This record gives sequence, C-alpha cells and structure tokens, in this order.
Amino acid sequence: GGRSLQPSRKWIRDVWEFAREDTDRVKFAFKVGLAVLLTALLILFRAPYEVFGTNIIWSIITVAIMFEYTVGATFNRGFNRALGSIVAGIFAIVAIQIGLSSGHIAEPYVIGLSIFLVGAATSFMKLLPSLVPYEYGFRVALFTYCLIVVSGYRMGNPIRTSMDRLYSIAIGGLIAVLVNVLIFPIWAGEQLHKELVACFSSVADSLEECVRKYLRDDGSGDAEFSKKVLDDFPDEPAFKKCRATLNTSAKLESLAVSANWEPPHGRFRHFFYPWSEYVKVGAVLRHCAYEVMALHGCLHSEIQAPYNLRCTFQPEILDATNQAAELIRSLAKDISNMSRRSLHTNLLKRVHSSTERLQRSIDVHSYLLTSSTHDPRRTFLPSC
Amino acid sequence: GGRSLQPSRKWIRDVWEFAREDTDRVKFAFKVGLAVLLTALLILFRAPYEVFGTNIIWSIITVAIMFEYTVGATFNRGFNRALGSIVAGIFAIVAIQIGLSSGHIAEPYVIGLSIFLVGAATSFMKLLPSLVPYEYGFRVALFTYCLIVVSGYRMGNPIRTSMDRLYSIAIGGLIAVLVNVLIFPIWAGEQLHKELVACFSSVADSLEECVRKYLRDDGSGDAEFSKKVLDDFPDEPAFKKCRATLNTSAKLESLAVSANWEPPHGRFRHFFYPWSEYVKVGAVLRHCAYEVMALHGCLHSEIQAPYNLRCTFQPEILDATNQAAELIRSLAKDISNMSRRSLHTNLLKRVHSSTERLQRSIDVHSYLLTSSTHDPRRTFLPSC
Repeated sequence: GGRSLQPSRKWIRDVWEFAREDTDRVKFAFKVGLAVLLTALLILFRAPYEVFGTNIIWSIITVAIMFEYTVGATFNRGFNRALGSIVAGIFAIVAIQIGLSSGHIAEPYVIGLSIFLVGAATSFMKLLPSLVPYEYGFRVALFTYCLIVVSGYRMGNPIRTSMDRLYSIAIGGLIAVLVNVLIFPIWAGEQLHKELVACFSSVADSLEECVRKYLRDDGSGDAEFSKKVLDDFPDEPAFKKCRATLNTSAKLESLAVSANWEPPHGRFRHFFYPWSEYVKVGAVLRHCAYEVMALHGCLHSEIQAPYNLRCTFQPEILDATNQAAELIRSLAKDISNMSRRSLHTNLLKRVHSSTERLQRSIDVHSYLLTSSTHDPRRTFLPSC
Repeated sequence: GGRSLQPSRKWIRDVWEFAREDTDRVKFAFKVGLAVLLTALLILFRAPYEVFGTNIIWSIITVAIMFEYTVGATFNRGFNRALGSIVAGIFAIVAIQIGLSSGHIAEPYVIGLSIFLVGAATSFMKLLPSLVPYEYGFRVALFTYCLIVVSGYRMGNPIRTSMDRLYSIAIGGLIAVLVNVLIFPIWAGEQLHKELVACFSSVADSLEECVRKYLRDDGSGDAEFSKKVLDDFPDEPAFKKCRATLNTSAKLESLAVSANWEPPHGRFRHFFYPWSEYVKVGAVLRHCAYEVMALHGCLHSEIQAPYNLRCTFQPEILDATNQAAELIRSLAKDISNMSRRSLHTNLLKRVHSSTERLQRSIDVHSYLLTSSTHDPRRTFLPSC
C-alpha cells in the first residue's frame, strides 16, 4: 500500500519523519508558540497595555525576530538587538537636540541629513570583515534611529517614546530568553559537539568504503569519468556523508559563535569553554576528508592499477586502512565521551607500522611494477 | 613613517583600503542612505503623513530590513516580506472574524490559541529543508499575524489598520527596490560569474605552486607534520586562495538563488538564465581542488620520494602540470568571456598525452623504483 500514497499523504509522512528524526524541532516550534502567546497576553490583559500603550506591540516583534533555534544564537541576537537599540537611541536623542537647537526651518534638513549619514555609515560598517558578525545589530540600529528621530519630529516627546519602546523591546527579549533557556533548552554547544563527532565517523566510514570498493572493483564498470566522480552511487552512502562534512565549516563556525554566548551547561561545566577549538579540530579533520576525496577520485579515474596488482597488496592496504579508520573512530569516541585515553600513541604507532609494512611489501614486490611492456593505461599509478 | 602609525590611524587606513578594493561597497552604503532618506521624506513632509498616520513608520522598517547588497537578494527578501505579510493578513482577518463570532468572553482565548498555533506552525515549517530559503518570510508572517490580531483586538478596525500597514510596507519595499535597481545596481549574477572565474584561476595557480614546490624542495625543511599542513606558509599564497575556494559552496549557492530573482541585465540577456549551472560547475571545480589539497598534503607528509627521483621525472611532471593548469585557465577565460572555443579538445588531448608521457617515463625508469635496499621511508610513494 505504501506505493499508492497520494503526494499529499507522502508529504505528511515526510514531515512526520522529519519531526521524529530530531524531536528538538518540535520542541522549538512549541517554544516559539509559547513565547509569542506569553507576549500576546501582555496585550490581551488590560493592565500592561495601559502602562505601555501601543508601544507594547514591539515586544511581539522582538520575540518573533529574536527567537532562534539554540540558546546561544538567541543570546547573540538579543545582544545585537539591545546594543543596536541603545546606541541608536543615544544617537537619535543627540540628533534631535541638535535639530531643535538649529531652529524650526533647519530642523527637517538636519534630521534628513542625519538619517542619510546614519544609513550610509551603518551599511558600510556592516560590510567590514571584522564587523560582519554584528550585521543584525547594525540593521536594528538603523531602523531604531530612523523611528525615534522621525516619530520624535512628528509626535513630540521623543525620549518618552523611545523609552517606552525600549522597555517593550526589553520585555520581549526577556520573554524570548527565558522561554528559550528554561523550557527544553537546545544548546549550540551540544549540537557542535555532536556535529564534530559525526564528522569524524563519516570520514572513517568513507575511507573504509573507498578502499573496500577499490579492492573489490575489477575495473569492469568504467563509464564516463565526469559522471562517475560527481554523481551519487547507490553503493557509496558513506562517501556522500563525507562530502557533506566538507561543507560543514560554516555550520561549525556559526555554532561555535553561538556556543560562546552560552553559560556552562550539561557536560560543559566551564566558563569560557574553548569552543573555537572545535572549529580548529574540524578544519584538521577536513584535511583528512580531502585525502578521502582524492582517493575517491582515483577510484573513478581512467588510469587504473591492474586487478592482480591490487590483489597482491590487498592485505597490507586493508590493514593500513583499518588501522587509520580505527584511530579516527577512537578519536571520535574520546571527543564524544570527553575523555583522554593514552592509547592513542599506541594506535598511531600501529598506523605507522602498517603503512611501513605496505611500503616494504611494495619494495619486495617492486619487480611487478617494472613490467615496461604492458599497456601504459593499466599501470599501477592511480592518476587523479 | 608607516610603522609609527597609531592603531586608530592604521584602522582608518585599513577601512580606506577596504573601500578602495571594491567601490561597490561605498555605492551600497550611499544607496542605503538615499533609500532611508527618501522614506523619511514621506514623514517629514506633511501630506503623506496625514494620509497614512503613524503606520507610515513601517516604510522605514521595511527599507532598513529589506535593503540587501545585490538586486536579486533585495527582490528575494521583498518577495518573502510581501508574501509573508499578505498570507499573515488573510489568516489574521479570518481569525478575528472567528474571534468576534465566538462571543465577548471567548474572544481572547480564541486569539491566544490562534497566536500559539501560528507561532508553532511557522517555526516548525521554516525548519523543513524545502522551506529553509523562505525562513525570513515565515518570521515576517508570524509577527505580522500577531500585530494585526492583537492591535485589532485592542484598537478596533483591524482591516483598516492592516491595510494601512500593508500600504506602508509596499511603499517602503518599492523605494528599496527602485533605489537598488536604478542607482548603480549591484547584480548577484555578475558577482557569481566573477566568483566562479576567480575560483578557476586559484585552482590553476595552486596546482602549479604545489608542484613547483615539490620539485624544488630537497626535503630539508621537515618539521612537525600537523603544523605544516594546517598553517599558512608565506611562500604559498595560491594555496591559501585555493583552500578558500573550498568554502565557497554556500556563497555560490546563495548568489545563484539571488541571481534567479534578477531580470536580464548586462551580459546576461536571457530570461531564465541557467544560474544553477554555475553552482554545478563550482562543485566540479571543487573536486579538482580536493586533488590539489591532497597533493599539498603529500608535499608536507613525512614519507617523501628521494630528491634524485623527483629530478628524474621533473620535465614530465612539469609538463603535465602546466598542461592541466593551462586547460583550467582556458576554461576560466571562456567562462569569463562567455565564449565557447573548440580548442578545448585540443588542450584536453595535450593533458592526456602529457600524463601518458609521464607514465611512460615511469615505466622506462622503473628500475629506479626497485631499489629494495634503501631506506623505506624515502621511497617514491608519497604517503598522505
């Protein structure tokens, strides 16, 4: 019956699978609903509405814009929003004073010029590489500045207006942070930790898969080169995952930035936990993944070693591969358990000695490599 | 005198260099200033303010939030904002009608429940992989819905309020789009085109640099392995660029998404220009870059071929490298000029024959590889 599902039922099943795969997603959705509801209560009840007036709707905008998936990202966005609002508020009040003191006729010109300058300055500054992480703060600063200056000009009493708005934003931000932290918190640090461990195992799996296929393949399935390297093979699930890890650099970095904002939690009980080290380890691991990608390129390249040559070195190649994969897996396990075992020098030595055994075997069988008469297309050197 | 600059003067000089490097950045900043100023004029003049009232400040928020660097990204964000606002508006009006018809006591409960459900639904949907590009639209839909429903409950006349707000948002969006398109437009398509061409040349440069260093290096500078592969070498500027191209996948993809929104412009005179092909070509090129990364790993690995062996094959290695680099450069030139020359099969054949010459040379000199007596650490196989 599964094949006769209509597209809409298939979609519902996909969504259900997506939710079941990681229940944090459902938790996140309900948390946003709760945070928005709590803020809406402020307006549905009469008392807070009478204190803050229509400015209270800024709380809802703040919750909707500030609520991020992880705790750290929410803190980061909240910080940007708060700092952007405060700096913009100060500038706006200064500009309004200058406008007022410059007389009735000059005032709109002063305000217009200041808006132009603030727009240009914030937009240029957010392009600077060192300020790119604060892009959202500059956006907030720009529109807060415009709002305060303009509504101050039109509606009078700009300081009262901006203070009310600031309170509303603060209330919205507080609700967003409290709901995010207190109810099923999703920590960026935890996600970063898991992501890195998953990268390690996908590199190890992919290495083994590549070599297994190299030794099994008898060169019968040679079609077009370009198709082979880039397309997905049904028998290479680990390679697909490994290729995906190569694109994780941005994800790891943004998770690390978010994690820096998080207080100690769960297994990460230190202040100033070195999250940036995860990014560095990820970069080292990516270098291992590049080698696996190159091996995969050799696997599907045109010039191949003859099958009998591969058979000759099979035990040594397999041994070296398994040792390397085991080392990577044991590092992954150690990162996952946050333990530091002393066994690694042992494992590293075994990788070393297995590669040296392979080297020695090549030396011993080097007479096989000197067959200068056979087809040059079929010699041992895997051209990439 | 350059060394005695104070930090602040150095910073100003850096910013100046940053602006000079790509004048689009300055143009962008002035365009944002102009767009915000134009919107502010709507409020500084009396007439439009009297028509729309305080809702006109939504124009400014819209400009500040919608104005993106490229034309395509601005269109994309504008579309998200427009669709999010409209869908939220329709839902909100339906919810208000249901609330009104359910009686005075039940109304706040209906509104509260609907806010919770909309918050949870939009937050869950924006996590779905197929809907991730519309993340911003869902955010806009959420806060627009809350605003209309809540201010409708408190202030009455929700349809009038939401229409005024929609008009203001439309005016802001229109100003943002017009300024972005008509004054020094920065096209995502053009940026994507240049970015891809730059990737090609960095791969070619890096390949040549790697091989040149391999042939020049006499193995004297062997320090720690880990430090060598990951650190920056002053003599490897091209490698640094090549490594940077490996992280461009996200950038190319987002530029291609933006470019899809752009009308025909400049050299790209077709509707439905195949921008997604740029992403695919970028992926193929990244596979070449993986091989270069693997070569670089070999360059800095512990087991190295003896220097005399490298000298033996130097002419053939250099020839094959130069042919390959020339092929990549000529492809880059063709993409850059948008021309299709028939010379490529010729170049490809030359790459082929040069690799075969290298293979033949290895066959001829294979007696050099059989020296089973020398140090196994110094045989020809570059272990990675």
